[in-house]
Amino acid sequence: MTPNSFSPEVTNPEILDIADLPAAAIAQHLAAMRPADAIEVLNNLDIDDTVAAIAHLPHEQAVRLFDQPELRRTDDILEHLPLDLAGSILDAMSADRVTDIFQELEDPTRTRLFVILNPETKAALKKLLHYPENTAGSLMTTEFISVPATWTASRTLQYIREVERSRETVYAIYIVDPTTKVLQRVVTLRRLITSEPDAPIISVGRDETPVAISPLTDREEVARLFRRHDLLAVPVVDDDRHVIGIVTVDDVLDAMTEDMTEDAYKFGGLEAIDKPYMEIGLPEMLKKRGGWLSILFLGEMLTASAMQHFEVELEKAVVLTLFIPLIMSSGGNSGSQATSLLIRALALKDIKLRDWWKVALREMPTGIALGALLGAICMIRIAAWQTLGFYDYGPHWMLIAVTVAAALIGIVTFGSLAGSMLPFILQRLGFDPASASAPFVATLVDVTGLVIYFTVALIFLSGTLL
Amino acid sequence: MTPNSFSPEVTNPEILDIADLPAAAIAQHLAAMRPADAIEVLNNLDIDDTVAAIAHLPHEQAVRLFDQPELRRTDDILEHLPLDLAGSILDAMSADRVTDIFQELEDPTRTRLFVILNPETKAALKKLLHYPENTAGSLMTTEFISVPATWTASRTLQYIREVERSRETVYAIYIVDPTTKVLQRVVTLRRLITSEPDAPIISVGRDETPVAISPLTDREEVARLFRRHDLLAVPVVDDDRHVIGIVTVDDVLDAMTEDMTEDAYKFGGLEAIDKPYMEIGLPEMLKKRGGWLSILFLGEMLTASAMQHFEVELEKAVVLTLFIPLIMSSGGNSGSQATSLLIRALALKDIKLRDWWKVALREMPTGIALGALLGAICMIRIAAWQTLGFYDYGPHWMLIAVTVAAALIGIVTFGSLAGSMLPFILQRLGFDPASASAPFVATLVDVTGLVIYFTVALIFLSGTLL
Repeated sequence: MTPNSFSPEVTNPEILDIADLPAAAIAQHLAAMRPADAIEVLNNLDIDDTVAAIAHLPHEQAVRLFDQPELRRTDDILEHLPLDLAGSILDAMSADRVTDIFQELEDPTRTRLFVILNPETKAALKKLLHYPENTAGSLMTTEFISVPATWTASRTLQYIREVERSRETVYAIYIVDPTTKVLQRVVTLRRLITSEPDAPIISVGRDETPVAISPLTDREEVARLFRRHDLLAVPVVDDDRHVIGIVTVDDVLDAMTEDMTEDAYKFGGLEAIDKPYMEIGLPEMLKKRGGWLSILFLGEMLTASAMQHFEVELEKAVVLTLFIPLIMSSGGNSGSQATSLLIRALALKDIKLRDWWKVALREMPTGIALGALLGAICMIRIAAWQTLGFYDYGPHWMLIAVTVAAALIGIVTFGSLAGSMLPFILQRLGFDPASASAPFVATLVDVTGLVIYFTVALIFLSGTLL
Repeated sequence: MTPNSFSPEVTNPEILDIADLPAAAIAQHLAAMRPADAIEVLNNLDIDDTVAAIAHLPHEQAVRLFDQPELRRTDDILEHLPLDLAGSILDAMSADRVTDIFQELEDPTRTRLFVILNPETKAALKKLLHYPENTAGSLMTTEFISVPATWTASRTLQYIREVERSRETVYAIYIVDPTTKVLQRVVTLRRLITSEPDAPIISVGRDETPVAISPLTDREEVARLFRRHDLLAVPVVDDDRHVIGIVTVDDVLDAMTEDMTEDAYKFGGLEAIDKPYMEIGLPEMLKKRGGWLSILFLGEMLTASAMQHFEVELEKAVVLTLFIPLIMSSGGNSGSQATSLLIRALALKDIKLRDWWKVALREMPTGIALGALLGAICMIRIAAWQTLGFYDYGPHWMLIAVTVAAALIGIVTFGSLAGSMLPFILQRLGFDPASASAPFVATLVDVTGLVIYFTVALIFLSGTLL
């Protein structure tokens, strides 16, 4: 058995056949599958079949499927389900998923569904809906376990057994002050089951202030805390340290993946798109790509202006134009290297904003050395082509070689500096440093690069070529 | 209290003061901190103080700190610790971390430490060390809980209470066939504590084949399975479905972050570096950046060759050179957009390798539309500059505008196609699609872009300018 044949997924050859079965039979198949597999089947059925199949599922199973963020078209499905069934599914789901779904719902379905929810779901939804995207509040759910500090271990365990079904996780138990309700300790379930039944619950947890976050904590910061403290869940507390919800690790995994995709798109120079490639329609695709492409194009037009400025020199020494693409791309490449290094360093908090000058002091010699390396390669190339007779750069070929090499040093250094400082500037201005895209850095460096090149040429070639 | 003042971390104003305390006092401070905070302090102490402080820590605390991947210089610390203490810490640690540490150790320390390990640690280490990096085997640990299918729920719970301390996680319990030891079910701890004490353990878990992976499963695929099935741990099984280890979610979070950084570096056109920016020495920095920069530079030299080929045309119509940077960068930008879209689509398995032609069929019209958009902008610019008298493109300015616009359509289409197909080609050849860096795509498109531009110019301008 090779590792490749080892796929743990039920890659279902019957997926297509299932679609032809009556809804009740489809539901029966779905109920026997893992939720992720069942969702893959549902996502590939047409909407009527999906609705019919869900209507035939046991209630608990339907709730389980709706609880997965991977289920698509939830708005359509809910719109077509019988109203009472839609309501009872939403009431039984976890509050964070209901919130996600309502965020995508549009009126009139949204209002129609909201009014039939039970009061607790309504309350949770109202609370969760007002947190901005990308914050802990938008990831959190209100179904957690908290007990007063006066309880014993066995009473806590008994309580968990009673409420387990309705809680997102029971692996972290939040101990609060019996009167002020302020968070005091976190006890893990593994600690709880190994503790003395009569021990006060407050004595079971480690004697340290629990890691807690505000509902407005950025979700990238939430992910960082999960990694730092190896958490399975983190309590979200208000300003008085009352627990108002929890964020669980499965939501953090999903959020990290979304962030990864967003950052990759930003760095590639396009707007974030939160759906699979194949589902992006042509108009949306053009909007997400055309906007940035046009802005970059307008910026890059400055290169034409810069070159018009050096028109006289260009006419005199057409040989200089041969190296324009080479020089510009080297600046862009060194800039995109520096940018990708610094975007990550800032994201991982390896570097603080105030350390920008330390970075500049490192990028300067790095840029000079890298520029010198490329300059040397270029001089060798020009000398080789000239002496081997591949191309004639004219009588001043040595001066040309020196000019190009000097320009490369200047441009690669500028590229490294500009590329490394841009993420700092963006963060300082309150933008995401990951917005420093490779194309943006390249555009920035291209225009300056041309000016550097022609200035160096004027210095080295005045009186000979120019 | 603003969200910013809400940092849950013990940002320790005393960190610097601590360094001046005697080792025993440092150890006392460390023992009272969260592991992540204690590690931050240790990472900032010099090596002698670090070793002395660890030697003064209670044994269990020292093990806890070593169990965190964030602790740096473990090789130095172990080399300087008393041999028996180093050995006893390693014996008590989780097997996956011991493996990570041994992977970084060098002889003679490596051998010196290996011989004093206890037999179980040695056996686990031998098993884990031979799995390649980036596989499930390199992430997994051998400390998991498995019980025979014949046990009852209460006996299982009793067993967990006994062995809890030595297990990485107890939240997933693996039920194996009592004779063949083949994995049959997974039971979660929350199911276990809510089940009837006398129930056979096999009846407690959901009636489905557990998600399991091979030790050679790629770690990106492991992360995908965690997200798909909302796992806290996944069993690693051999070809006969015997459980040989588990991968836990905290390791997956760390691995995802490393992958994110690696992918960002690759896309930025430099080699992966697995240490914080500030700790990269100049020689290493030059190596990781200079290599790719040189390769790209050599590739980009083809642009000079391409331009030499069109030397005659360049001499005749210097005005054409004005648009070279603009045209080249547009190709590169559209290419990097397409590449970043497709790298993510392949990573998330939104698209399969065999669907490359569907992508090509989408990128073609997208590229043509985007190219037409940029072409239109460029024609407006040339017309405006000409009629407003900002610049004189000569009597044939309309033909020039049409030439540039047509070239833009060709180049942006080519850029979108090349950028979207490159990740497929890399994956097909067995490379990581994420290696398709923005600079690499730009270089590819630059050379072709020049040829397209001059060819279009020859077609449109023969008989007038050329």
